[in-house]
Formats: sequence, C-alpha cells, structure tokens
Amino acid sequence: MPMEILKTVQVMQKKAHEFIRQGLKIGLVPTMGFLHEGHIELMRVTRKETDKLIVSIFVNPAQFGPDEDFDKYPRDSEGDIKKAQLAGVDVLFMPTADEMYQGDYQTTVHLDKVTRGLCAISRPGHFDGVTTVVAKLFNITMPHTAVFGRKDYQQLAVISRMVKDLNMDIRIIGVDTVREPDGLAMSSRNKYLNPDERKSALCLKKSLDLANRMFEKGERDAALIKQAVNDLIREYPFTRIEYINLCHPSTLEDINTLGDETILALAVYVGKTRLIDNCLIK
Amino acid sequence: MPMEILKTVQVMQKKAHEFIRQGLKIGLVPTMGFLHEGHIELMRVTRKETDKLIVSIFVNPAQFGPDEDFDKYPRDSEGDIKKAQLAGVDVLFMPTADEMYQGDYQTTVHLDKVTRGLCAISRPGHFDGVTTVVAKLFNITMPHTAVFGRKDYQQLAVISRMVKDLNMDIRIIGVDTVREPDGLAMSSRNKYLNPDERKSALCLKKSLDLANRMFEKGERDAALIKQAVNDLIREYPFTRIEYINLCHPSTLEDINTLGDETILALAVYVGKTRLIDNCLIK
Repeated sequence: MPMEILKTVQVMQKKAHEFIRQGLKIGLVPTMGFLHEGHIELMRVTRKETDKLIVSIFVNPAQFGPDEDFDKYPRDSEGDIKKAQLAGVDVLFMPTADEMYQGDYQTTVHLDKVTRGLCAISRPGHFDGVTTVVAKLFNITMPHTAVFGRKDYQQLAVISRMVKDLNMDIRIIGVDTVREPDGLAMSSRNKYLNPDERKSALCLKKSLDLANRMFEKGERDAALIKQAVNDLIREYPFTRIEYINLCHPSTLEDINTLGDETILALAVYVGKTRLIDNCLIK
Repeated sequence: MPMEILKTVQVMQKKAHEFIRQGLKIGLVPTMGFLHEGHIELMRVTRKETDKLIVSIFVNPAQFGPDEDFDKYPRDSEGDIKKAQLAGVDVLFMPTADEMYQGDYQTTVHLDKVTRGLCAISRPGHFDGVTTVVAKLFNITMPHTAVFGRKDYQQLAVISRMVKDLNMDIRIIGVDTVREPDGLAMSSRNKYLNPDERKSALCLKKSLDLANRMFEKGERDAALIKQAVNDLIREYPFTRIEYINLCHPSTLEDINTLGDETILALAVYVGKTRLIDNCLIK
C-alpha cells in the first residue's frame, strides 16, 4: 500500500473510521515535521505496536509564543514525505493552520499543575497550545496508541496527564531520546547551531552523565547535583542556563533529596538556540 | 435486552468498544438525573437516531459554584432507574465523583467567547465545568450522536462550539423544550417552587410569547422588546430578573436590531429558585 497524504480533517477522520471498522489498531506519531532519526524511531516503535501508522506534520502556531521561532522553524515538506515513505508510514496527515483552527475558534485544553515550572516559565501558554492541538489530533486520527519522545519530557508528562484526566482511551508511549554519535539529543532546532555552538551543545548530555555518576557514587542532595551541573555548563562557551531541575517523574514537582526515580531536566541556550534535554536518574 | 447499569469508566469504555465493533451507532443523553419528561423526550429522539442509547446520570460538582445548589440538587436514583428502563435505555452510566475526578485531577476544557454573557455572568466557571465533564463523557461513551435540550440554550451552543473546535466526530442534536401543560419549561429545579412561586414561574413562557407577538407585528428593536418583557415579568410576584437577552443563535453575541433569527434568553429568580427559558424568534 502506498503512503497516503491527507490534508483535511474530514478526509482524515473518514480514513480513521475505515481502519477502525476493519478492526485495525491505529498508531499516531504527532510531529512538527523536519523529520530526523528521533522521529523515525518513534515511527519504528509505533509500527511494532499497531496496525496502521499515522504521522501528523503540523507546525502548530498556538504553541509558539510571540517572540519565539514559529516563522523560522525549519520546514521541509518534500524531504519529510520521502522520509515518511521510507519509514513505512500509512497516512501522512499534513493540515494547514486554517484547516486546524477554523472560523470563530475559541477552545483550549488547559492543565493546571504539571504545566507549571520547567519550560512553562519561559514559554507561557506553550502547553495550552500543545494539549489543545494534541486533543484535536487525537479526535481527528482516533489512535489506539500515540507515541512521543522523552526528549520533550514535560510534554510527555502533560499529555499523559491530559489523557488520564479526560478519559481518552489512548495508550501513550514515551520513547527514549535518540542522540547523535557524540551524545547531542536529536532536535530539529540543532540546525540553528553554528560549528562552535554545536561543540558547546554537548554540555547538556555531559551534565546528564555527570549527575548520573554523582548519584551512583551516593549523592542524594539535589542542590549539590544542580550546582555541579551548573558549574559544568558554565565551562562551555556561548551557553546560558535557563533551568536545571530535579523533579518527580510524573508530577514534575521539585525534589530536594533524590529518591528511587528523579528526572533531571535542562534548558540551556547555546548562542540564540534554546536546547532541552533530560534523563531519569535511578 | 435488559438495561445495564455501569458505574466505572473502564467498564463503560469496554461496553462502548463492544457496540462500535458490532457496527452499532451509540447515542448519548448526558443528564444530572432526577429525570422528567424533558429528559425522556431527549431519549426518544436519540433512540430514533442511533442503535444503542446510553444515558449518563452525574451531578457534576465542577459545574456548581460554591454558593449554588450542588448539595440540595434533587436526586432520585431509584426513580431514575425505573424511568430509564421504561424509556428503553440500553446503558445507564452512573459514576461517582471520585470515579470521574481521580487523584491529581487538573484538566479543564475552556471556551473563550460563547461562554461569556448570559448564565456565565452569575455562574463563573460553570461552563468550564460543563465542557470538561461533557468532553470526558464523550471519551467514555464514544457516541456517534449526543442529544441536549434547547432549554439550556447556552450549554447547547457551548458544546456545539467545543465539538467543532476540538474536531470531535460527534453529531450534536438540540431538542425543543418540553413544557408543562401551562407552559412552564420542564426542569428538575421546578421541584423547589412552592405553589405561589409555581404560578409566578409562568412569567418566563409568557415573556417568550410576548416577544414573539411583538416580532410578528414588526417590532425589530431589541431594547423595546426587552423593556416589554421586563415590564411583564415585574408584574409577577416573587420574581427577580437576572437577565433578559436577545442574541445571535450560535455566537450568543448581543443583538440590537432583530434579523432573521434571534434567541431570546431569560434567567429569572422566582423566590430562591433560578429558572431559565428561551426561544428562537424568527
């Protein structure tokens, strides 16, 4: 079966109903396009878990702030279509913003707690944009399983909470971050980095490794781990720390003393590029 | 088939999946129970339009304000079960509040414009409670068609807008208000009225009739119609007007000059009981 490219909500919903009527389980990978190996890994996982693989590509204006990179966010429809075909995608859903937000649009899905802290501080409204568009994509593609990368850890936590709270009958799977050979987490935004910045960008993965080593040696004091990570990042040129956070894996509440499972989450500017990364410390 | 009474989200979703696998179209009538002829009419309409009739009974705490009548809202589970059986309901979904709002619950579905004005002014947060619980009930019962009374006109407009905005693949049907022989709109809250108040409660329907007569005679000035309705209601003892509104049928925006279709919406206290009613003027 060749890959289908669908652009309207109505046709996508009709196709989803067709799959469901045939008893097929739908898997969804929502993306903003400019596909890289991280996205391809999400597709691989989804293919194994479901019968039909739907990938959405939609650079969602609602999740970008007024001073953010919506306009210059990298786009490559032709390249994305080829990569999706190679990855065995059944349906590529590529709506326009006008198709997604029609006429007198006025609805938001809002979460109260897990959307505070971390990325929410510098990106007010970002997670409302994410939860709303993901709720819409779920209603449009009707997935049994939806797959997200752990690189956007807060996004995964927020969506998992939304699905539970709104009783969406969808299984959410988080997939481990795919990294470049030297450890940098794959991200469409890595494209913004010049060669010198690219070298400094390694500080994020180095920080995660350092924190893990400290934990293995018995360190449980969050403040001390944060201080060490802070010192490490500052050694790299062009870097500006937005946050270094140790928090609970599902509530994302700050942790002072590390227990069985803790998330270390980082947001660091390298030049003008904002990078995020995280790991589970256990 | 005898009526099934289900109390948990999980069992309800399993049942809904069963219906869908069999190719059956599900109809949902969401209610707060204390069923009257108005609800039964919604069920009749739903039965005609779908294969399986699900009725939910849930007095949703999230849509009552702190000073409102959540605790004293009339409840009659046994009577409701009998009435639902007689009405040919296939599944009665009766969850507890703990079942609906579990653990660290924190998600709200919010609409921006159509939730302003009318009932929203005296009931802040009410429509967030309504849209959120209805979104949940939709995800739990997976209806093809959901049916609401036009008596709660703003609720119907809000839910119609939410369904459209969030791309829920659900048909929403509004059903004309069922009235007592003398014209009073059926409502669970009519139970609160003493015999004298019950007489005064007729002012709402009399207002709708008056406005329609004025329109038929050529009156198009909203202010004059509102004034006439205001004067009429004030002739009835125990009444206190909350609002008299002439607005657009779907946006609910105020209208100064009546066109092809206008909604007249009223909220009037009769004694301590808040009653609402409305009609389409065309």
